[in-house]
Amino acid sequence: MRLVVLLTDWGTKSYYQGVVKGVIKRIAPEVEIIDLTHEVEPFNVREAMHVLHRAYRDFPKGTVFCCVVDYGVGTERKAIAFETESHYFFVGPDNGLFTLVVEEEAIRQIVELKNSKYFYRQVPSSTFHGRDIFAPVSAHIARGVNLGELGERIDTLALLPYERARKEENAVFGEVAYFDRFGNVETNIPGFFLEGLKLYSEVTIYIEGKRIKAIYSRTYGDVPQRTFLIHTDSSGFLEIAVNQGNAREQLSLQGGEKICISF
Amino acid sequence: MRLVVLLTDWGTKSYYQGVVKGVIKRIAPEVEIIDLTHEVEPFNVREAMHVLHRAYRDFPKGTVFCCVVDYGVGTERKAIAFETESHYFFVGPDNGLFTLVVEEEAIRQIVELKNSKYFYRQVPSSTFHGRDIFAPVSAHIARGVNLGELGERIDTLALLPYERARKEENAVFGEVAYFDRFGNVETNIPGFFLEGLKLYSEVTIYIEGKRIKAIYSRTYGDVPQRTFLIHTDSSGFLEIAVNQGNAREQLSLQGGEKICISF
Amino acid sequence: MRLVVLLTDWGTKSYYQGVVKGVIKRIAPEVEIIDLTHEVEPFNVREAMHVLHRAYRDFPKGTVFCCVVDYGVGTERKAIAFETESHYFFVGPDNGLFTLVVEEEAIRQIVELKNSKYFYRQVPSSTFHGRDIFAPVSAHIARGVNLGELGERIDTLALLPYERARKEENAVFGEVAYFDRFGNVETNIPGFFLEGLKLYSEVTIYIEGKRIKAIYSRTYGDVPQRTFLIHTDSSGFLEIAVNQGNAREQLSLQGGEKICISF
Repeated sequence: MRLVVLLTDWGTKSYYQGVVKGVIKRIAPEVEIIDLTHEVEPFNVREAMHVLHRAYRDFPKGTVFCCVVDYGVGTERKAIAFETESHYFFVGPDNGLFTLVVEEEAIRQIVELKNSKYFYRQVPSSTFHGRDIFAPVSAHIARGVNLGELGERIDTLALLPYERARKEENAVFGEVAYFDRFGNVETNIPGFFLEGLKLYSEVTIYIEGKRIKAIYSRTYGDVPQRTFLIHTDSSGFLEIAVNQGNAREQLSLQGGEKICISF
Repeated sequence: MRLVVLLTDWGTKSYYQGVVKGVIKRIAPEVEIIDLTHEVEPFNVREAMHVLHRAYRDFPKGTVFCCVVDYGVGTERKAIAFETESHYFFVGPDNGLFTLVVEEEAIRQIVELKNSKYFYRQVPSSTFHGRDIFAPVSAHIARGVNLGELGERIDTLALLPYERARKEENAVFGEVAYFDRFGNVETNIPGFFLEGLKLYSEVTIYIEGKRIKAIYSRTYGDVPQRTFLIHTDSSGFLEIAVNQGNAREQLSLQGGEKICISF
Repeated sequence: MRLVVLLTDWGTKSYYQGVVKGVIKRIAPEVEIIDLTHEVEPFNVREAMHVLHRAYRDFPKGTVFCCVVDYGVGTERKAIAFETESHYFFVGPDNGLFTLVVEEEAIRQIVELKNSKYFYRQVPSSTFHGRDIFAPVSAHIARGVNLGELGERIDTLALLPYERARKEENAVFGEVAYFDRFGNVETNIPGFFLEGLKLYSEVTIYIEGKRIKAIYSRTYGDVPQRTFLIHTDSSGFLEIAVNQGNAREQLSLQGGEKICISF
């Protein structure tokens, strides 16, 4: 019994997220569906890439991730599905959304989705591949259909350029991954890069031409109200935050900005 | 095994959407519940009417739709349930929400919900019929209770006036159905009304005393940024959009406005 | 077969609410998960306390409530679980969130969560106890693990001070419990306190130094548009509302304010 997990930018308001569940249930009544989130910023493939990367390993093996952040629907981008050696399945547009999964996992098989037998409509609409291709294909995979039946094997998928986290002697580097609801700034810099740095040290963050002092802390409550801090968040990455404040707004960030933290 | 699908204007924030699931699970532990959306604009029966109409056919036969957009709770409007010949079930207030379903489907049976044996509380609260009447009745229908046991047979239900889509020689007519999160304006005009119109033709939209030029496109990316377009959306209806912009805001729309598109 | 119900302030946008479902499914694939809400105001333990109190009895016996509104994560507050004589289970931080449940229910057993065998990670992160402690412990309880195995028995839990509802001859007293999406102001004053008061009487509300006239009504539609009313809401408590308006905004309320209604 497999799960289908949905990750989209449709918004919780949209009935689309309800409809794809109807489509999945028509095909695979026994499958369970979980919403990872439908509130990725519209068209923000980078955010979806980081969110998926941080979340997928907390789901059971065999889970099928149906990911639809798809500014290119109706254009020539491919529709794909792939399976990892670690036995997770991913379905979605070939636009770089899966970059970080692919960097981490050995891939067993990638296919371009071509076999309309597994689509919801033989002629999919030009704008709603979520309902017409990605959801039904995810449901069929969850029922046990082999990837090989879904289309043609391909060897590579699209990768999104990003600022890989790295460490130098007195600084670490990376990028803004996404924001949470509180305006905390999630980076892609692993927390262990700062192992050995003394707790409550002051660090300097360089971002978008700005230079901010922050305290290296264990948690929000460790610094005075309205003070910048960095800490290792629950996913194991560094987060830039303001205790009871909104770091994103104070720094006017959009996502994807390069970061340097020196200490 | 049937699904219960929820469509309300309570908002995702409201614990009401959680509580009705608890009530359904008390009555029918084996039933699955899917949220179509809880983010219909408050009291906007017209939006709910269009959303339900666009979504219901994508769910499995036998699905029970529990629809609560109910400005008249506590007044004299009826509480109803009905079944279509196509074997879908609908439960909710008799306020016009089901107008478009009824126009499309042959009705097998309509009942006014009177039998308090199937309510959650023998004396329902005067403000929360979602929990006290509509959710428990939906759960009982999903378990197989016959509509005839739920109350008195009635012959008709309330219908909402709306601007029916129609086509003339050089123009199509209709109304604003609802808005998606991106501010795209969904109309009730079927896309095939424009079959034969040359792709990338310029059309003129008349709405609320405004007159806008737009490009008839296949998808968003087909026109320059910030340009108005119309296209057939994934439900098969015409949508007015601005590529990477917000058409609703630019046109100051509220919903229900009459539309004429001439070409 | 038990339910796990989630109540958090993470926001529907956050992938955290998806991830904890993945963690629960890894431990207890057969358990069903229901979102009560993830939209409690950030860090607003008082709102969560009132919401939980109003909702829990509408779920089946045996339900496990996993409640994470936790400003103190990473500090010394305890992580707890308890069972009521009425056979509901509660899991979360010991910060007062359970005050109203505890006032109402006889408690069978409280434990401080110490046994890392039932955690998701042997060494939990310092910021995401939802994923690492509360969700997995909830899943284990739903599978039937005894509370006694989860940690050390304790005798008391933290209680939040609040303005208990009371009635005098010509007035009732209480506090602002929370707000719904429409800006209706939910109080903790039971509706039956006003039994015998004539419908459509004028009452005076004293709150935050303001003095407002309102009509005691049965439902919203009973008073003219833009008029203040009080009525017994669906949970059986008094609600302050403005017909088709936003009472919270008009009164500039934050939550927790003391209220006096005189008649």
